[in-house]
Amino acid sequence: MGLYIGLDLGGTNLKYALGDETGKLSTKKSMPSLSNENQDKIFENIFSAIEELLDETDSDIPAIGMGTPGSVNFERGQLNGTTPNIPDWTNAPIKKSIEDKFGIPTYVDNDANVVALAEARCGAAADCSSVVCFTIGTGIGGGIILDNKILRGASYSAAEVGHITVEMNGKPCGCGNFGCLEAYAAAPAMIKRYRHKLKRTGLLYKEDQLSPEFIFQKAAVEEDFAIETINETCDYLGTGIASIVNVLNPEMVLIGGGVSEAGEEFIQRIEKVVRQKIMKACSDVLKVGKVQLGNDAGVVGAILLAAEGK
Amino acid sequence: MGLYIGLDLGGTNLKYALGDETGKLSTKKSMPSLSNENQDKIFENIFSAIEELLDETDSDIPAIGMGTPGSVNFERGQLNGTTPNIPDWTNAPIKKSIEDKFGIPTYVDNDANVVALAEARCGAAADCSSVVCFTIGTGIGGGIILDNKILRGASYSAAEVGHITVEMNGKPCGCGNFGCLEAYAAAPAMIKRYRHKLKRTGLLYKEDQLSPEFIFQKAAVEEDFAIETINETCDYLGTGIASIVNVLNPEMVLIGGGVSEAGEEFIQRIEKVVRQKIMKACSDVLKVGKVQLGNDAGVVGAILLAAEGK
Repeated sequence: MGLYIGLDLGGTNLKYALGDETGKLSTKKSMPSLSNENQDKIFENIFSAIEELLDETDSDIPAIGMGTPGSVNFERGQLNGTTPNIPDWTNAPIKKSIEDKFGIPTYVDNDANVVALAEARCGAAADCSSVVCFTIGTGIGGGIILDNKILRGASYSAAEVGHITVEMNGKPCGCGNFGCLEAYAAAPAMIKRYRHKLKRTGLLYKEDQLSPEFIFQKAAVEEDFAIETINETCDYLGTGIASIVNVLNPEMVLIGGGVSEAGEEFIQRIEKVVRQKIMKACSDVLKVGKVQLGNDAGVVGAILLAAEGK
Repeated sequence: MGLYIGLDLGGTNLKYALGDETGKLSTKKSMPSLSNENQDKIFENIFSAIEELLDETDSDIPAIGMGTPGSVNFERGQLNGTTPNIPDWTNAPIKKSIEDKFGIPTYVDNDANVVALAEARCGAAADCSSVVCFTIGTGIGGGIILDNKILRGASYSAAEVGHITVEMNGKPCGCGNFGCLEAYAAAPAMIKRYRHKLKRTGLLYKEDQLSPEFIFQKAAVEEDFAIETINETCDYLGTGIASIVNVLNPEMVLIGGGVSEAGEEFIQRIEKVVRQKIMKACSDVLKVGKVQLGNDAGVVGAILLAAEGK
């Protein structure tokens, strides 16, 4: 039994780890991802991380896995177009570059898909063959596991769970559509709504003072506007999640990302809204919970992707 | 190569046919489904249809397939609970009853799933491995094929595509939720909206004079209210379909059911709305079209279900 290398490329950090086919990590490291450098520099950085791990072990390395932002053509292991936080990562031929350099089979997928895989295999949804994983932060992203496999979609663009409609003809969304879940329930929307409520009272905060954490803290001390803002966010999230549950009838819905750090009560409130809105047969089998693997999810998922090779 | 038996049980008719593993029919028949009789009577009727087909052929019959309204536990071939148009069909043990009687392996699934299978194998989506099929009539139902397989869901309740939200806190829906696509775009909602517009002019039609066909006829002669009603219906349908496309990134969306009979222009308008709302990467690969197999879809799908045995 060899060890696999898992890489998790982000806008800020590159996490890299060694682990086995069950997702158990034996080494775990992080370095800046150099995401604003040119593509060659980013690859050199990734190569140095791989070399560092190879130097550290005498084990056979049967495969390398990697999660990256952006849409990824899984078969080619190549970025489909651009990704906003890594400007020169456009069409990056990740699989080919790593395989050419190291001669080790490499598997690459979108980071949210890789996180969903990790949670479905050895995280919060470890006993589930179908999972929808929501990541709620600056945007709302997601990964979907159906029939134990990542749902990639016909152009590797499935699981855009932030871009389902909650209000037809509603607020404009960054994607060009109107009324998307992301436009109502991601962190910026939450902050905007809270500021708007505060304005009525004459209370003004600067943009950079406000964050979901701030709102959750205010809600914890019973500030009405904060509580209102959170309840509305849960209503929107619950509505969007319910739509997806009625279509996919999954075993589990997982909630992760910065906004989910608000704690158990937040998740419970979302769950309550979801259950009010979905079909009974869907509710009977559905579990709702929080992601479990935290910062390790990306490298664990990348290792599993490598181990499973699909 | 043998011939398969396909059965399509509906609230009015039981269609039954012989066909090969490509879905090509050699015999096609129909009789009343006796849907208001008790379960024994309905089964006797089904048995007589099977006997009639067995009498007609000397071919080996390797398997029987059937589509039925309601949620179906595919492994057990049994209805999950009730279905409104066949009152005594609750928990009907279809697979067991037919296998006990004829000793022929039997596969049973929800009728919308079976239709989607037929369209994906030898209908409008014959070259597609992922298809979302919408049936727009009194309600809005659907069937989903992903990775060439029927998406059944954790409790055999997937593809409730009529019950995704288009307007949060919108109109009440029969499912208990508010703002579902079905509450805005199924035939009854369309008729209600049209009547409401006519009231403004003092024009009154009796409930039973109005139908989607009537509205489409009026639109064809440029009646403003009819055109408005149809445009609104397309906006709702396009919004709901777009949400699902952004989540599943399928190769094809198919539209069927009574309301879809309005013709090519209706489908084209829905497609236009869908493309305005979905992510570009999803639009690049998506085809939108009308179902092709019409009244045969149910028996063809049942035959394919039997032939594939899954």
